[in-house]
Amino acid sequence: MHSHATINYPEYIWPAGKSCAVVFSLDLDAESPFLWMSRGQEIKHLGEIEQRRFGPRQGLARVARLFEEYDIKGSFYVPGVVAETYPALLPFLVEGGHEVAHHGYFHERIEAIAPAQAEEYLVRAQELFHVQTGLKGLGHRAPSWEMTAEFLNVLQRHGVLYDSSLMGFDHPYEVEGLIELPVQWTVDDALYFRYTNSARDKTHPANPAAVLESWIEEFEGMRECGGLFMVTIHDWISGRAQRIRMLRKLIEHIRRCPDVWWARADELAAWHGNSINSKRFLVPAHSIDTHF
Amino acid sequence: MHSHATINYPEYIWPAGKSCAVVFSLDLDAESPFLWMSRGQEIKHLGEIEQRRFGPRQGLARVARLFEEYDIKGSFYVPGVVAETYPALLPFLVEGGHEVAHHGYFHERIEAIAPAQAEEYLVRAQELFHVQTGLKGLGHRAPSWEMTAEFLNVLQRHGVLYDSSLMGFDHPYEVEGLIELPVQWTVDDALYFRYTNSARDKTHPANPAAVLESWIEEFEGMRECGGLFMVTIHDWISGRAQRIRMLRKLIEHIRRCPDVWWARADELAAWHGNSINSKRFLVPAHSIDTHF
Amino acid sequence: MHSHATINYPEYIWPAGKSCAVVFSLDLDAESPFLWMSRGQEIKHLGEIEQRRFGPRQGLARVARLFEEYDIKGSFYVPGVVAETYPALLPFLVEGGHEVAHHGYFHERIEAIAPAQAEEYLVRAQELFHVQTGLKGLGHRAPSWEMTAEFLNVLQRHGVLYDSSLMGFDHPYEVEGLIELPVQWTVDDALYFRYTNSARDKTHPANPAAVLESWIEEFEGMRECGGLFMVTIHDWISGRAQRIRMLRKLIEHIRRCPDVWWARADELAAWHGNSINSKRFLVPAHSIDTHF
Amino acid sequence: MHSHATINYPEYIWPAGKSCAVVFSLDLDAESPFLWMSRGQEIKHLGEIEQRRFGPRQGLARVARLFEEYDIKGSFYVPGVVAETYPALLPFLVEGGHEVAHHGYFHERIEAIAPAQAEEYLVRAQELFHVQTGLKGLGHRAPSWEMTAEFLNVLQRHGVLYDSSLMGFDHPYEVEGLIELPVQWTVDDALYFRYTNSARDKTHPANPAAVLESWIEEFEGMRECGGLFMVTIHDWISGRAQRIRMLRKLIEHIRRCPDVWWARADELAAWHGNSINSKRFLVPAHSIDTHF
Repeated sequence: MHSHATINYPEYIWPAGKSCAVVFSLDLDAESPFLWMSRGQEIKHLGEIEQRRFGPRQGLARVARLFEEYDIKGSFYVPGVVAETYPALLPFLVEGGHEVAHHGYFHERIEAIAPAQAEEYLVRAQELFHVQTGLKGLGHRAPSWEMTAEFLNVLQRHGVLYDSSLMGFDHPYEVEGLIELPVQWTVDDALYFRYTNSARDKTHPANPAAVLESWIEEFEGMRECGGLFMVTIHDWISGRAQRIRMLRKLIEHIRRCPDVWWARADELAAWHGNSINSKRFLVPAHSIDTHF
Repeated sequence: MHSHATINYPEYIWPAGKSCAVVFSLDLDAESPFLWMSRGQEIKHLGEIEQRRFGPRQGLARVARLFEEYDIKGSFYVPGVVAETYPALLPFLVEGGHEVAHHGYFHERIEAIAPAQAEEYLVRAQELFHVQTGLKGLGHRAPSWEMTAEFLNVLQRHGVLYDSSLMGFDHPYEVEGLIELPVQWTVDDALYFRYTNSARDKTHPANPAAVLESWIEEFEGMRECGGLFMVTIHDWISGRAQRIRMLRKLIEHIRRCPDVWWARADELAAWHGNSINSKRFLVPAHSIDTHF
Repeated sequence: MHSHATINYPEYIWPAGKSCAVVFSLDLDAESPFLWMSRGQEIKHLGEIEQRRFGPRQGLARVARLFEEYDIKGSFYVPGVVAETYPALLPFLVEGGHEVAHHGYFHERIEAIAPAQAEEYLVRAQELFHVQTGLKGLGHRAPSWEMTAEFLNVLQRHGVLYDSSLMGFDHPYEVEGLIELPVQWTVDDALYFRYTNSARDKTHPANPAAVLESWIEEFEGMRECGGLFMVTIHDWISGRAQRIRMLRKLIEHIRRCPDVWWARADELAAWHGNSINSKRFLVPAHSIDTHF
Repeated sequence: MHSHATINYPEYIWPAGKSCAVVFSLDLDAESPFLWMSRGQEIKHLGEIEQRRFGPRQGLARVARLFEEYDIKGSFYVPGVVAETYPALLPFLVEGGHEVAHHGYFHERIEAIAPAQAEEYLVRAQELFHVQTGLKGLGHRAPSWEMTAEFLNVLQRHGVLYDSSLMGFDHPYEVEGLIELPVQWTVDDALYFRYTNSARDKTHPANPAAVLESWIEEFEGMRECGGLFMVTIHDWISGRAQRIRMLRKLIEHIRRCPDVWWARADELAAWHGNSINSKRFLVPAHSIDTHF
């Protein structure tokens, strides 16, 4: 069992004296998780797939209009198969000044497939993104926010700019040598609003007023702690009418706070790598001994 | 994998310059889903069946009185077996100016039974409705809001006016050639209030004040987005005392908004088919490749 | 399939022009459901059993003091094994002017055991209650609120005054020839607050302010509908500090409404049987055809 | 079946005329429960382990700063493997005036392993704590708050000061001869906020404003009932930004109440053993007959 120095990490330093950073990120899943979960089966029922296709049909455009209204540049994580199925998406997002980044090819869970397969999917997504946008060396967020030490190395080998899947700090850090821009379940819309009538749904959609109250508390806490407020939304979930209203209220709350650095995730990665913070928050991926 | 044009769908146009439409729909399930789930078994326990029979005994009449008070004409989706067991229901609803439409015969899930069986049940329901009301060519909503491409074709072959089971847009559209009047889980009372002490119950009944707040947000969002606010309630769930009060508050909120088109679902279908919207929102049922 | 007359049930009539009735009932389960679920197993872990024993040790006395403060006479449903284990309970409750009634012997689910066994347990409970209190011909509520047509007949054969386990109306009615005083999941504290760290726990304990708001809405709805507001609490759940406060607020709300008939369940049964309501709300236990 | 005297327990007496006691306790689990649940398996996925390591990296220090700001001395329950992995933790806590106490070695569930194994883990934890802090005869809280009668005896044999795992009263009592400082699920942060995307997660993280409202009600109830308000938080859960804010509001609420005794758990144990309360609240661990 290795040992950890703790308790004495320094404060994270943000540019221009800002007290915290805000990133609006969107995992543009559309129907891809449903297809992945159904792989190899004959699928006849339309319920969930139609519900998810609401995302690229209507939801994404609404989010994009909202962002444009407030001049927000977001970070959009797009599975390869979604970019392939909806070829207008990536060009539309890049045109709008948004960041596009990887999110698996089939929304595959990395730890559940063979490492060589995961690598192949990454390469395939990189090639597709290059064809559709001309861009290389983009960022990455793992589907279902699940990661392995091995795949962190694969990402580096293939020139990925950063990962954004883990939550070991609440500001940027470095894990296994790769910049990690942490996500957080508390500010993921899917936990609160996803309902597809499948076994995995755990409760009814939450009251957006209660979610807004919780998220504003998290934001205010990040201002106090000096952390990263990385919201994650989904095209087919937050594109729904009541959630656009909720996001608008959240944005307006944050807009009234001048001490916030609004940024895309790739801007955060650049800041982290070139700032005093670099090398201050290094952790190994693990070293877990479960044989006791 | 087929590809989709997206992002550039036009706004939906409502009659007389209205900004959105409102439909109050009721799935008159009574005990039918319990019977379907128990088919072929000997059922001795009375708990859930008595709880559900509250619907036709008291709940439905309360909802009908509430609608009458506000002069609302609703859309009632009735399984064949419920119309058969309670033969006064369909005539009562038609007399009140409400729409009656199909909802399976035994509340069967369409994708879970043989296609020929599903078709037979549809025909049987159509015959029963014709006998009890003299009506033909009614609308349809699938039990559990589950549908297949094949059954969309069956519906058209049997002269069904529209389907109302999917959620691929949040305004009317056309799927596989049939008009679709989308539902939405967020405004389905069952998710929030259904509790029968069975394994499928996921939490306690919600606070109706919180549900009201959420539904009003969805309604206000629909006014902004120009969509369809299709509420779905159930006889045995929303007929309960606290929920009648909640529905009254919702109705009074909407009543104060002059830009709303209150309609029955069949009126929406007629509008859609004859308006500029027709053929603007066409999608195939699917084309899902899960073999990768 | 038999058919039902519906829609045209008359209003329920309460005594002295009251608009609704209120009963505070308590299912005094203590550790009995845990023992029943663990029957035949060796139980070593103490967590849930100690949590439940809080009921007879502290919770019940708190509820009783609260009732005394407001001069409320409640209806207490007590499994035989609880009366046996805590022999001071029944005399204490009777002394306080409360109703005591049956709730199984081992908190057994009636539909899950042999009919002869269920009958034997009933007789055993009746004998024990008679020894401890001198009372006979008491009321009955089934554990887990589950009932069978057969057991409704057993109850009558053994002189039980009424049953209170079903929810087919929201005022008293008669099922299979026995008076039924309906319960309702919405006003059962266990759904909102029970948490034992077992698989059946579905969420964290609810915020009592939200539950209070929901329950007051149900009460106000019952005033409008003319129904029975039958609250059900549990010794080990509502005896907890925050819930005593919640109950006090509920009681104070109801106390301000002069149109309410506060009663014990046995008083309701007597009223029902001797009033104009008798024979107006008769239903068969079932007649379910699940072979289609 | 043994019988219990009940209903007539006296009031609990607190020192200096205080009306209730408040303990802030923290179960410093970090990654230990995940390792225990994964024992013997090869673990490749990083999600939950990184999420939990946020606790010792950032969460604990935030809680400690908050406590320091209000001069609160807390009670910290630390699994042996956490103290071993993060050797700076125990000295840091002792230095801050906090109580450190046992919480298993590998966060093992006591009732699920062999008694001799449980005893061996206790001894190993005691030795480690002695090496790291010089302290002996510390208190104990069982992982997952699960306990057996047998292990209560083991604890006494090894000089443990008290146990804090059960909830049979809501003030200190004595079970099987050992002082028990009761916990309560209602004021455990994990039930409300834990979310790791595993099957055991039952719903989304709660709105901290609603949790605060519930906890304040429980605190106010304890003032009325004269009980122990024992809050339990976790490093990786309540160290998150929004929860630090919630805890601050809770602390400020309690601070305004002069009738409260703020104490560490070990101070409560000392008070209980030497006060008039001693021997007034004695219960056997059980005596459960499940063979009927």
